[in-house]
Amino acid sequence: MKLSETGELRLIDMIRKKFRKKAAGIVVGIGDDCAVVKSRDGHVLLSTDMMVEGVHFDLSWMTLFQLGFKLVSVNVSDVYAMGGRPDYLLLNLAAPGDFQVSAVEELFDGIAAASALYRVSVIGGDVSSSDRLMLSAAVTGHADRVVSRAGAGVGDLVYVTGSLGDAAAGLLVLKRMKRPLRPEEAGEAPVPLARDVVRTLVERHVMPKAVRPDRIAAVATSMIDISDGLLIDLSRLCAEGRVGARIYAAKIPMSEEMKRAAEVFGASALELALSGGEDYQLLFTAPKEAKVRAVRIGEITRAGLEVVDAEGRAAPVEPRGYEHFAD
Amino acid sequence: MKLSETGELRLIDMIRKKFRKKAAGIVVGIGDDCAVVKSRDGHVLLSTDMMVEGVHFDLSWMTLFQLGFKLVSVNVSDVYAMGGRPDYLLLNLAAPGDFQVSAVEELFDGIAAASALYRVSVIGGDVSSSDRLMLSAAVTGHADRVVSRAGAGVGDLVYVTGSLGDAAAGLLVLKRMKRPLRPEEAGEAPVPLARDVVRTLVERHVMPKAVRPDRIAAVATSMIDISDGLLIDLSRLCAEGRVGARIYAAKIPMSEEMKRAAEVFGASALELALSGGEDYQLLFTAPKEAKVRAVRIGEITRAGLEVVDAEGRAAPVEPRGYEHFAD
Repeated sequence: MKLSETGELRLIDMIRKKFRKKAAGIVVGIGDDCAVVKSRDGHVLLSTDMMVEGVHFDLSWMTLFQLGFKLVSVNVSDVYAMGGRPDYLLLNLAAPGDFQVSAVEELFDGIAAASALYRVSVIGGDVSSSDRLMLSAAVTGHADRVVSRAGAGVGDLVYVTGSLGDAAAGLLVLKRMKRPLRPEEAGEAPVPLARDVVRTLVERHVMPKAVRPDRIAAVATSMIDISDGLLIDLSRLCAEGRVGARIYAAKIPMSEEMKRAAEVFGASALELALSGGEDYQLLFTAPKEAKVRAVRIGEITRAGLEVVDAEGRAAPVEPRGYEHFAD
Repeated sequence: MKLSETGELRLIDMIRKKFRKKAAGIVVGIGDDCAVVKSRDGHVLLSTDMMVEGVHFDLSWMTLFQLGFKLVSVNVSDVYAMGGRPDYLLLNLAAPGDFQVSAVEELFDGIAAASALYRVSVIGGDVSSSDRLMLSAAVTGHADRVVSRAGAGVGDLVYVTGSLGDAAAGLLVLKRMKRPLRPEEAGEAPVPLARDVVRTLVERHVMPKAVRPDRIAAVATSMIDISDGLLIDLSRLCAEGRVGARIYAAKIPMSEEMKRAAEVFGASALELALSGGEDYQLLFTAPKEAKVRAVRIGEITRAGLEVVDAEGRAAPVEPRGYEHFAD
């Protein structure tokens, strides 16, 4: 059987089974946003994320600065999603020999800008030649209280930290533009949308900012960052916690910019919000009585995943979102 | 300017300069086998290494089991080269969608076998689709006494832990065979060399075993693992320590198998030992008075790199070995 028939989720299950044996000190192993190990300093978080040209990014509409920035954001987001703070970053860079040194400089400028924003230190890595650009980073972090994907209880409320679908709408804009939007760019918008709408959505896609959990980490019962889409990432939370969830379409935060772009491109705003990936907002659960500054979108149930539409009709849904290897 | 004109070493220098700012807690930053940070548990070592199809390996003559094993070995070797012990491993796997699940299983079996050998736990990672196979791992470790690349003093002796050039000779054999050598294989040797010679050399290339420093770590003044070749890795030790080195051709340990293969393939055994990469032996320096169980090959000088031939003639040499992006 091929990976394209198995899909990413079953592949990860296979890997989990193969390396299930837990050594002393492992608090959270394979399958969460970060692995967590115990140390005398508290909990050490470890995570790694790849970005492959043609899969995760397209240099025809993304600058190398933006790419470097995003690489750091997606790695830091994994640490935030466990309730932690990032400390150190290792970088892997594979690039073709005819790649310009100035382009690599731009990439590292983006990495440096994001590293400064998140106060994380780049301390090592590896470089290799390759026929196409491939990046990965490994990040370490620390946390007093670790919030894993498991832990949601029936009756807990479901929250997100901000508007969803913006990054997916930004991708629609970029696919139409077929070139990067540079921050200093002025003049006519390159698509039939107001210039600031274009800028906002494109930036959400190419330079997402990881959301710091701050006080959320103290009360959340489970948490994940939305990298592949609300429904698929919510289904992961539910699977780990052996629970279900009901969410309300009318409560899902959607920006005016995203709704406007959906209209112009003939897409469903709700669909972008439910299944669009790469928003890197935090999705978490907390007990009813907890005080939380985030947008409540639903509640945890015994089993299944359902979306209640604007008219109050509940319908079961299949998790949809980005899955590697899937056709 | 292109990366192919700059070369790997200057690229790493550029990266080092860009991320020079040291945060508190960083003991060793970019440019050594591992980064080292302080924790209450002692020193934490962090490293990462990539393996790209067509650059680091060729599946036409390497099995996926061997590849998985080697990925772990090269990462663990970086920890050993700092005098440490490995703890945890994160894996990144990018593979084409038409890759067979059974092939991925074989890859993970190799990773599991090596992880058991080195007592390191796989605790996380990332998977992605890609047009070709790309692997990377990040490893963490710990050490009481860290041995960096810097620290060799003039007059220190230079040692290696075992024979050099075996992996390079194994690669020559594989390039001639154009297929993997499976461990269970019997019958006629596929090249004009005795079967056990073929097996020994091929195994050194496809399944190198990282060398544990043990008591070396307590006395070494500087250390590196030989991944790209003796001369290039020795020149790195010298550059970091701002010293030179003189080594004696007659003292460089070479296996009978390697010398026999060099003869058959019309290659220079000394050249393979000096510039062949991927032996993953440790190269280190220690004070004259230190008791060391390893092969002494030379001494540290004020500056320059020279090789003394069998007749006692010293000649300056340029570091030769594997460099990414170089033509």
